[in-house]
Amino acid sequence: MDFSQTCVARVEYKLNQILSIQQHNTYAEIYDWMRYCVLGGGKRIRAQLAYAACVACGGEFAQADNVACALELIHAYSLVHDDLPAMDNDILRRGKSSAHVAFGEANAILVGDALHTLAFEVLASSNMQDDKNKNANHKKCAPQIQLRLIQILASSVGVRGMIYGQMLDLANQNNQNNQLSNKANQLAELKVIHEHKTGALIEASVKLGALVGNCSDKNLLALSVYAKNLGLAFQVQDDVLDVISDTQKLGKTSGKDNAQNKVTYVDVLGLEQAKIYVNNLVVDAKNAILDWNEKANHLRNLADFVLNRNY
Amino acid sequence: MDFSQTCVARVEYKLNQILSIQQHNTYAEIYDWMRYCVLGGGKRIRAQLAYAACVACGGEFAQADNVACALELIHAYSLVHDDLPAMDNDILRRGKSSAHVAFGEANAILVGDALHTLAFEVLASSNMQDDKNKNANHKKCAPQIQLRLIQILASSVGVRGMIYGQMLDLANQNNQNNQLSNKANQLAELKVIHEHKTGALIEASVKLGALVGNCSDKNLLALSVYAKNLGLAFQVQDDVLDVISDTQKLGKTSGKDNAQNKVTYVDVLGLEQAKIYVNNLVVDAKNAILDWNEKANHLRNLADFVLNRNY
Repeated sequence: MDFSQTCVARVEYKLNQILSIQQHNTYAEIYDWMRYCVLGGGKRIRAQLAYAACVACGGEFAQADNVACALELIHAYSLVHDDLPAMDNDILRRGKSSAHVAFGEANAILVGDALHTLAFEVLASSNMQDDKNKNANHKKCAPQIQLRLIQILASSVGVRGMIYGQMLDLANQNNQNNQLSNKANQLAELKVIHEHKTGALIEASVKLGALVGNCSDKNLLALSVYAKNLGLAFQVQDDVLDVISDTQKLGKTSGKDNAQNKVTYVDVLGLEQAKIYVNNLVVDAKNAILDWNEKANHLRNLADFVLNRNY
Repeated sequence: MDFSQTCVARVEYKLNQILSIQQHNTYAEIYDWMRYCVLGGGKRIRAQLAYAACVACGGEFAQADNVACALELIHAYSLVHDDLPAMDNDILRRGKSSAHVAFGEANAILVGDALHTLAFEVLASSNMQDDKNKNANHKKCAPQIQLRLIQILASSVGVRGMIYGQMLDLANQNNQNNQLSNKANQLAELKVIHEHKTGALIEASVKLGALVGNCSDKNLLALSVYAKNLGLAFQVQDDVLDVISDTQKLGKTSGKDNAQNKVTYVDVLGLEQAKIYVNNLVVDAKNAILDWNEKANHLRNLADFVLNRNY
């Protein structure tokens, strides 16, 4: 298995444990719905970034398991709520029916809420302090570090992060002023949306992985630059793929941005310039960790994946 | 000011600080909405329970400020989401328009999400470890305790707590089987709903206050019995008030349970027996802390308030 497959297998295995129905017979139906929303799909980019950052800082895979799960739980919750009829009203997600289509709107809201809470429960869990792995390099996570993980995650997904981005993105849809604004303003506005909507959680993914890998503050700063560029690259590439890819490959509705009258990077820059922009952002991301040793190769490869992905 | 007024004033002041718009100009509109949902209303029962439990365990008010805020943020988030059209579809809350009526359904979902995250951010915040109050009795909160607070809160509001209760409650509405079930079964089912939907957060309120007041494990157990009885009493009294009180006094729509074809304690027990049941539960709650000293009087008074309240 290559790095990417290892990460996906690990995080799926751990998420499956966390959402194991055997342990929770009373709540079987809700756990079924949570599993539907969380397991068996997705590129697991956030988990991969956490594992890659942990390894780049000298940590081991096992140290990043819980943060990888927490990040994917948050990501899943945000997708469930974003897909709701009152929000993006999307019926397709990861190649299957969206949550509200599969089990109704009220249950979808509650399942999203449950996944949201569970992410913090996982990060606060005492088994982050266990040391069942007897390998000397597998260090415990100090309570102070656990609190810092929770602070960073909360800050990135809350009102100054992902939530704000989603609000701006909703306002961006069907905005009659979109045609009137000049390109410089449109670019600036898009940057603010995406720094919050997707960038904040991408940055948190890298930071959480780095912190459980015992990253120094100086290295954390470099990783933050890496992550900011990568997060933006990821989003610009999303806009590119929305135009050039098809629904089946994406596992979500393609051409949606246009249908929603949403301004995208492709609208503002044109397709070719948008592709060049992704390329430049990926170069900047990799330059932030230029002098890091080969343990940072997974981070470099993930940057290349963002550039080259077609789904 | 009596105890109740002091608690309300403290938690409103602290929530106001946390949601202070001056600090967050970029996000002014969302903070406005969050303030709308959180400030200037509500009995602050959960905050009062946290303060009372903290004091009963020998702590001071200031030690419970952050947990009181976190509990009220969670409560506010749960009300915003419960009122949504897909859920209870209620247009009135705390005497004003529900969130989705005031600023739209998508924004209401997101504001609920933001309040949910913020509760965990407050509990993980490093200022819980600050010691600005120079009073020798004002102890810092150890990181291990902070993590335990987060674990308890997450567990009480997640899929094995409040979320599950709300799902059962939705299923209880318009359930054609409600008339067919015998009274013993109906009572058992109601208990499961309310232990989860409101009881879990009531119990967490007492526990969080107790823990920041440096409660022993033995006393925590007694407080847990107190809280379980009080939580149930609170809900039975809610059912009683839904029948005998009016919308203006409640600040929310009265007679709603009946309109939603929801089975309540009044349906199953009759009004008089339901009142007696509340009384017995309140006695059991107070008996759990019978031999505690006068510092537990606030807890005793809160139990009496639940019995005597008419709003």
